[in-house]
Amino acid sequence: MKQTLLLLPGDGIGPEVTAAAQRICQLVAPDVAIEEDLVGGASIDKHGVPLTGAALDRAKSVDAILLGAVGGPKWADVARDKRPEAGLLGLRKGLDVFANLRPAYCFGALVDASSLKRDRVEGLDIMIVRELTSGVYFGEPRGIETDANGVRRGFDMSVYTAPEVERVTRVALEIARGRAGRVCSVDKANVMESGQFWRQEVTTVHKTHGGGVELSHMLADACAMELVRAPKQFDVILADNLFGDLLSDAAAMLTGSIGMLPSASLGTEGTPGLFEPVHGSAPDIAGQGIANPCAAILSLEMALRWSLARPDSADRIMAAVGRALEAGARTRDLGGDLSTTAMTDAIIDCL
Amino acid sequence: MKQTLLLLPGDGIGPEVTAAAQRICQLVAPDVAIEEDLVGGASIDKHGVPLTGAALDRAKSVDAILLGAVGGPKWADVARDKRPEAGLLGLRKGLDVFANLRPAYCFGALVDASSLKRDRVEGLDIMIVRELTSGVYFGEPRGIETDANGVRRGFDMSVYTAPEVERVTRVALEIARGRAGRVCSVDKANVMESGQFWRQEVTTVHKTHGGGVELSHMLADACAMELVRAPKQFDVILADNLFGDLLSDAAAMLTGSIGMLPSASLGTEGTPGLFEPVHGSAPDIAGQGIANPCAAILSLEMALRWSLARPDSADRIMAAVGRALEAGARTRDLGGDLSTTAMTDAIIDCL
Ligand SMILES: [Mg+2]
Ligand SMILES: [Mg+2]
Repeated sequence: MKQTLLLLPGDGIGPEVTAAAQRICQLVAPDVAIEEDLVGGASIDKHGVPLTGAALDRAKSVDAILLGAVGGPKWADVARDKRPEAGLLGLRKGLDVFANLRPAYCFGALVDASSLKRDRVEGLDIMIVRELTSGVYFGEPRGIETDANGVRRGFDMSVYTAPEVERVTRVALEIARGRAGRVCSVDKANVMESGQFWRQEVTTVHKTHGGGVELSHMLADACAMELVRAPKQFDVILADNLFGDLLSDAAAMLTGSIGMLPSASLGTEGTPGLFEPVHGSAPDIAGQGIANPCAAILSLEMALRWSLARPDSADRIMAAVGRALEAGARTRDLGGDLSTTAMTDAIIDCL
Repeated sequence: MKQTLLLLPGDGIGPEVTAAAQRICQLVAPDVAIEEDLVGGASIDKHGVPLTGAALDRAKSVDAILLGAVGGPKWADVARDKRPEAGLLGLRKGLDVFANLRPAYCFGALVDASSLKRDRVEGLDIMIVRELTSGVYFGEPRGIETDANGVRRGFDMSVYTAPEVERVTRVALEIARGRAGRVCSVDKANVMESGQFWRQEVTTVHKTHGGGVELSHMLADACAMELVRAPKQFDVILADNLFGDLLSDAAAMLTGSIGMLPSASLGTEGTPGLFEPVHGSAPDIAGQGIANPCAAILSLEMALRWSLARPDSADRIMAAVGRALEAGARTRDLGGDLSTTAMTDAIIDCL
């Protein structure tokens, strides 16, 4: 059956970088049908809302979604639930993508961009699997209130259920099987009940579904340290929503080239994954044709690998980006002067 | 009135490094009376509990407490609430030390020990002020249970009250006034109600008590990134218990010499502070006389500065440690071969 990729270019540099990814897709997977729709500010401008029901329905019906970026100063004064970012949240929620994949790898040619010494990051290849739909960012009750004694307080519930831990753990185990086969699960089991629970459940799931994968546990603060000290010790890191948030950003920054990094958000098997660069809409350089297309192209790489089951096409892209960088191709953010189009051409030349 | 410092050497290398700090104290502040008592495994062995009521009462009655380290394999099988670590928790709770000060600085002579490049960490001098007695590590309700539908869940309440935020914010502002005058408060106000509340309260406290101090806010994940990218941008970082836990450990590791770092835990003004090295009891090298005494000596430095109001003596210690390192003095963990005593001698020579 024909596979479909939905492009949601969004705002700022989003349209420029997704156009670059589209060119690559047409070359490495020409039989994939490409559709396009609106999200974020672009959708607000046309429809008054950051994500229409029709766009969400379409997203649910395709095989994979490649999103550019959302947001910008133009929509800063819009009410919170009507902001461009609400379109992205609505998409994640509507697709029920509970596993956020955040790779942190370092292309050989860019190792010196890292604030870490060469030997600490050369060959770095971590995959962080972050639970994306539960935990303290979504738990109930939550609020700000004044109690009976007149004392103001703010609170959020940090909570996980067994099925929530199970499904994201199974994704991490599955991913580790295609890599070095090691999952390090992160929590604060020493001081949090939900941390103890997380550790128990991950251990249980590993017993049943962990064939061939080595599981270890690490406290989240120790993990924050170890990422700085010796990041190459990690293969897959599994973390809840909050710890995954901080640790995936720290790990990404280890590479020194956060403008290069993609992400994937996956739901249950058979449902479409959502793929997007880690970088934002960069309104300051939007429309100038100078944005770095690599993160969007590598997001396509993840879409081909995780939703479209085309690992060979994904490998081709990964190798081509590496070779183009090795040959000296650089956009401005990487210290070069190539335009978005010229950088894309350079990668295409290396396919 | 005569000031008193209570030494709680504790376990493992604790007695060796506190003995080193004691020698320094007798030289730079000879009029300070020094007492000693038991905590941790040492207290379990003698009294059956990791902290006696008498030891806690004594701690409350002195001006400052210098703790070595607690714990070790000998007491690993003891019930959780009777473990050496429970002695430390009992002490913190009994003293109500709500502000944990975790400096991250890098001695010039040790810059190359960092996994970061020299230019990123040379001259690094961050003070992280972490709230230590509230937040999700202590919030209620908390537990692991099976709900009416048979679904297991683990949960903890992330909660702060206005007085809790106020007192730790005032400590951070006061500390910044003696430094570069900048506090960066960290939260997840974008996704947590307790984060929004934290930001509101910190802002309010700054309006009343922030004279001369510049306040900024940063999301915790962005802070984790910025600590890796450009750590020298920070002066004082103010964070809640959980974010402060991860960020202080990441910041400490930036220096590459976590065995060098001290910490302080302060309560309300006029109550004794608790000072201790960041490192643990290191049972593997205990009793061999090779432990690095610097973290304990620098913990004494913090005690002199923050509880005993002797900034000149503190400055003397800080300068002497820097000069001894510059002259090449190194214990094994720093790549040298000096014993604990010889390293202490080298620092004394530089006083
Ligand atoms: Mg983040
Ligand atoms: Mg910690």
